[in-house]
Formats: sequence, structure tokens, C-alpha cells
Amino acid sequence: MTSQRHMYFEDFFVGQQIDVGSRLVTEEEIIAFASQFDPQPFHIDHEAAAQSIFGGVIASGWHTCSMMMRMVVDGVLGASSSMGSPGLDCVRWIKPVRAGDTLSVAYITKEVRPSTSKPDRGVVVSLWQASNQHGEVVATVEGMGMFRRRPEAEAGRA
Amino acid sequence: MTSQRHMYFEDFFVGQQIDVGSRLVTEEEIIAFASQFDPQPFHIDHEAAAQSIFGGVIASGWHTCSMMMRMVVDGVLGASSSMGSPGLDCVRWIKPVRAGDTLSVAYITKEVRPSTSKPDRGVVVSLWQASNQHGEVVATVEGMGMFRRRPEAEAGRA
Repeated sequence: MTSQRHMYFEDFFVGQQIDVGSRLVTEEEIIAFASQFDPQPFHIDHEAAAQSIFGGVIASGWHTCSMMMRMVVDGVLGASSSMGSPGLDCVRWIKPVRAGDTLSVAYITKEVRPSTSKPDRGVVVSLWQASNQHGEVVATVEGMGMFRRRPEAEAGRA
Repeated sequence: MTSQRHMYFEDFFVGQQIDVGSRLVTEEEIIAFASQFDPQPFHIDHEAAAQSIFGGVIASGWHTCSMMMRMVVDGVLGASSSMGSPGLDCVRWIKPVRAGDTLSVAYITKEVRPSTSKPDRGVVVSLWQASNQHGEVVATVEGMGMFRRRPEAEAGRA
């Protein structure tokens, strides 16, 4: 399910899976993104893409990740105490993403770690997993997010 | 310098640094990207950003990476035998990127590894390093790229 409540650091737990939604990928947006940020022939040029090892236009990996990010913002971060992210690891583009694919993304909590230096926050390590309409995992990201802890006042009511 | 020739797998070597260019970041594009892919308040909302730990609007980390990608395509991949990428590691957002910053990106070859299963190609591991106009490193990415080897016919002439 998509998270409905405002999530603080305390609301994340190892093994938790939040399905943050799904969306159709169109050729128009694949080409628009790649024209701006990743103009390699197999992302923007039908003819060249058909001749490439991919056999047709595929989404830039950065585009796939950016679409995943949007779903993670809509499903988790947007209604949370997120304080941004120091970075990511293990970005993997496992299968091509093509126009007409529907991507579904799961946000799976792998680790929760209170900050040792700043008592008001903690780090959540999460695996973002994007699958296509055939149930194939197409991309994964291991994200680190900083989240503020629940304020004392609210904790009393929780 | 920006690479001028078509690069094959054989043209990459450990320690090689290619400066792939620099570009100004505008507030208009920061907000346009984040509105589409990362609509967190500190990327799209002046007032909320001023109240955040960042003290003002900052670029989405995905936007910073996508701008880096464009420079890497223009400076290396676009004139190369690139066959795409299986993924990335160690994406780090070290300092905020703000409107008015000028980002310069270096592509530094860390490892070159012929494919053991496919003799026509190899993997290049590279560090992408983005610095701002103050010489501060703002973001790094460790990229993996697959490149075709130089064709025999051309190798004879090299």
C-alpha cells in the first residue's frame, strides 16, 4: 500500500515493504529526458537503436531512476520527516525499460540506524525495486535517507 | 581536455582523467527537474527551502547526476563505442548544488577489465567528480561502462 501517514524515523523497520505505485512509460518522455541528459543513440534515435544491442529505443538509466524517485517521493518521502540523502549505492539497470512498459516500485527498508552525533535524526537504508508489467525486476537502487525523529510531543500521543 | 576522437575500450587506461566540461545551473532548471521527478519542498519551494536545513533551494541529487551524465556523454560516451552501463555505485551528494553554481566534471578511469565471456568488449570503471566554482567537490559517481573493442581493421592502422 501507499503510505498515508506522516512517517518519522521511528516508523521505518527492517523488512518493511511499501509499494509506492506504478506508472506507464511513454516514448515521448523517454526521448525528452534523454535528449536533455543522455543523448546516446539508443535512447533518442529509432534507427540507431534498432541496430544497437538493445534492438530499439530504451529509457536512460537516469530516467528510470528519476521516475523511481518520483514514486518514492509520492509514496514515502513526501509525507515524511525526510531531511535529504547523502547518497546511493548499487544502482543496477538489469533489464531495458521500453515505451509501453508499466513500472511498479517497492521501497523495502533494509537498515535503520539512529545518528550517533545528532540525536534528532537517523538514517534509513532502503532498497528500491522497479518491476515491469511482466513481473521482471528492471532496476534497483540502494538509497540512504536521513529522517528526523518524531517530536516528543507527538510521541506521547503515538 | 574534452576527448576529440572516437574512443574504444583500448583507449581507456587507469589514472586517465578527462575533463568533460562545465555548465551553469539555473534555478529555472532546478525547479523544472524537481517538479517532475523530486518534488520535495527544499527543491521546489523557496519558503520551505529557506526553513530547511539547506537554507534555500538546492538541486535534486538526481538532477545533479543527470547533468553530470550529459557532460559525460558530450565529453566521452558520445564519441565512443559505448554499449551502455550495467549500473553505478557510490553515488554521493557531498555539498548542496544551488542556482548560480557552475559545475565542472572530471571522468577518471579507475579500472579497465576485458570481458571474460564476450571477447568483443570490456568494462571501464570510472569515477565522475563534479566540482563547483569554489573548487569544492559536490558529487561523485562510480560508473561502470561497457565499451566495444577496436575493430581489427582499425587496430592495424592505429
